[in-house]
Amino acid sequence: MVLRVQKYGGTSVATIDNIQKIAKKVADDYSKGDDFVIIVSAMGDTTDDLINLAKQISDDLDLREMDKLLSTGESVSSALLAMSFHNLGIEALSLTGAQAGIHTDSFFSRASISDIEPSRIIREIEQRKIVVVAGFQGIDGDEELTTLGRGGSDTTAVGIAAAMDADICEIYTDVEGVYQADPRLIPNVNRIDEISYEEMLELSSEGAKVIHSRAVELALLNETPIFVGSTFSDNRSGTLIQGSIDMESSNKVRGITHDRNVARVTVSGVPDVPGIAAKIFAPLADYGISVDIIVQNTGHDGYSDMSFTVTQDSLDSTLVYVKDLAAELGANEVTGDSSLAKVSIVGAGLQNSPGYAGTMFKALNDAGVNIEMITTAEISITCVIKQDSVEAAVKALNKAFLVNNSNP
Amino acid sequence: MVLRVQKYGGTSVATIDNIQKIAKKVADDYSKGDDFVIIVSAMGDTTDDLINLAKQISDDLDLREMDKLLSTGESVSSALLAMSFHNLGIEALSLTGAQAGIHTDSFFSRASISDIEPSRIIREIEQRKIVVVAGFQGIDGDEELTTLGRGGSDTTAVGIAAAMDADICEIYTDVEGVYQADPRLIPNVNRIDEISYEEMLELSSEGAKVIHSRAVELALLNETPIFVGSTFSDNRSGTLIQGSIDMESSNKVRGITHDRNVARVTVSGVPDVPGIAAKIFAPLADYGISVDIIVQNTGHDGYSDMSFTVTQDSLDSTLVYVKDLAAELGANEVTGDSSLAKVSIVGAGLQNSPGYAGTMFKALNDAGVNIEMITTAEISITCVIKQDSVEAAVKALNKAFLVNNSNP
Repeated sequence: MVLRVQKYGGTSVATIDNIQKIAKKVADDYSKGDDFVIIVSAMGDTTDDLINLAKQISDDLDLREMDKLLSTGESVSSALLAMSFHNLGIEALSLTGAQAGIHTDSFFSRASISDIEPSRIIREIEQRKIVVVAGFQGIDGDEELTTLGRGGSDTTAVGIAAAMDADICEIYTDVEGVYQADPRLIPNVNRIDEISYEEMLELSSEGAKVIHSRAVELALLNETPIFVGSTFSDNRSGTLIQGSIDMESSNKVRGITHDRNVARVTVSGVPDVPGIAAKIFAPLADYGISVDIIVQNTGHDGYSDMSFTVTQDSLDSTLVYVKDLAAELGANEVTGDSSLAKVSIVGAGLQNSPGYAGTMFKALNDAGVNIEMITTAEISITCVIKQDSVEAAVKALNKAFLVNNSNP
Repeated sequence: MVLRVQKYGGTSVATIDNIQKIAKKVADDYSKGDDFVIIVSAMGDTTDDLINLAKQISDDLDLREMDKLLSTGESVSSALLAMSFHNLGIEALSLTGAQAGIHTDSFFSRASISDIEPSRIIREIEQRKIVVVAGFQGIDGDEELTTLGRGGSDTTAVGIAAAMDADICEIYTDVEGVYQADPRLIPNVNRIDEISYEEMLELSSEGAKVIHSRAVELALLNETPIFVGSTFSDNRSGTLIQGSIDMESSNKVRGITHDRNVARVTVSGVPDVPGIAAKIFAPLADYGISVDIIVQNTGHDGYSDMSFTVTQDSLDSTLVYVKDLAAELGANEVTGDSSLAKVSIVGAGLQNSPGYAGTMFKALNDAGVNIEMITTAEISITCVIKQDSVEAAVKALNKAFLVNNSNP
């Protein structure tokens, strides 16, 4: 008997027709003896519609109330999927996050799962019922509804799979797995059939949108195997995420990612004294602004330049805060650039093999792509570039590392 | 300090604009020192929209899942109203039925409140917060979401008012209180300024749609005063429901009601043996069919005719069951008529004063209205008539009892 935890995203459950198709697909495997816990997102644009409704009231909305409002979306889709199973003569029931035992901390709109208590799910599964769980939501210690923020339903699925020691956590979406690069840019790019947690983590945090890095982190901690595939594809091909980096396949570029949502802030003439970075970045964290890449140039005459990237929608507020700070700290000038992007190559051991960086920079240079910033991590190298160079950059890197396989 | 429990129906919260108007209205009184618990229905047609969504899956839907689906409507409107208070700078929060301590039995889609545990509401009110509660929903002993069925939000409001010993339970709707007859039929009819629970109960169970009879029953049990008024009216006039029947005002017709949703089933030639009524009606109750008026003619030759009324939408299924039963019981024939209605006069002491019935029958007869069935209760007399005679009947009764005040 195999216990499968499956998650279906918003597009997959966008219509009653789609929901019924999912029920039929699961019913086939259920009749062969597999057990199922199914996590659903809200239908299609429901979440956006609810946000727009609330924004008619104010732009500055209470996060507790937003969580109550938004969590209704997953409650609706979970009930409709349970009904669709009934309609096929299969016993099923929907559970809210609270009923499914998803306990979280109290950070509304971006809660973390503290603990999953799956006794109710287990009880229902033992009676051969299919359990449908509303994704994205949980309950805190005061019985307040919370939502898990970005990647929430993926995280619910991996969390439940880990808590129940499921055989597999299957994430179904509108693409057939994880590709070595964006198929919209590189049409014949290969799908990755199997990948380690660490490499997938790097791919997803550098822009691969198929599964949220938070869910991959949770799977890594609990060693939960994840399968990523297409909801409505007949062939069951996709990407399996499991295990650690395979020594045999290390020193190889596994994927190329890009992210067009990059803005840069540059603070010039910062006095080069210890602790200056903390003085700039600690307040930004307090304001809820996530900084991605930070580059500090070596100082000249006791002054240095510092650049960092944020998402484009947080550039304006970041500039306001940083200009105040810069005045306090005696820095010269603060400038912002919102038209940037980043491209990364991801693979085990890249950082320790300098040849990769050289090949990457040369490929970009040959394609006429100017490199604005560079950062390296354990298994990735990332270049910040102009936004309008993304396509040329990804094509050049594909040619250099995937097609010609010119690993150094 | 006055504690006011207010309920706003679906039309009252149909748009963000309306929700914000309610917030402003309440804010004025809040700033003068009153405390508020506010119960809301789902926005406008939300409940119908959700039902239609589910009916795309099946016509035979699981009631547990329907309750989960439908209860999202009130969660949405309650969160939006709480946000609207925040936007006016007032501390407020929304609570689900479960969070508000609304405990029910486990009859999905028509649960009864077993107990209200208002400690959370009290804690918030003590901090001068406005508490907004999602109406219509509760939680059973197994932490399953339930809904209260028809009149559910009215019942939530009266229940909370009773549990908190509130000073007043205010039911806001789209009419300015309870009228002596339907203002659409009798344009200048008077509003009832004050009425006893018993009389209101009779009015609402005989067709006055302003407040559900279930909520009035609960108020009667707990002696909770109810005010019924219009949500967006500037003058604060309406109907106050409280106390017992005033001896001074007894022997007087307080109101005329009508209900166009009446169908009749007639079983002819029923063997006139003891217990025959139970044999017919007990199974109907098991099938969830509510029978309203029952009339049994005196038997002739050991046989009698029996007629009873049901709502029009349950006529077809009732006929199926009753035809089977009639065959078993040896009855002659079963016929149905779906084009009926009923008119009632309501007032204390009517039953004990035969003159009322005579005046009523004469008024209907003079207006050319044929009486199909008659039933009398402690404080009401009801005639079943043809549906197309409703307007003539109500006008005739208005003239006889309200305008000419021809109480016998």
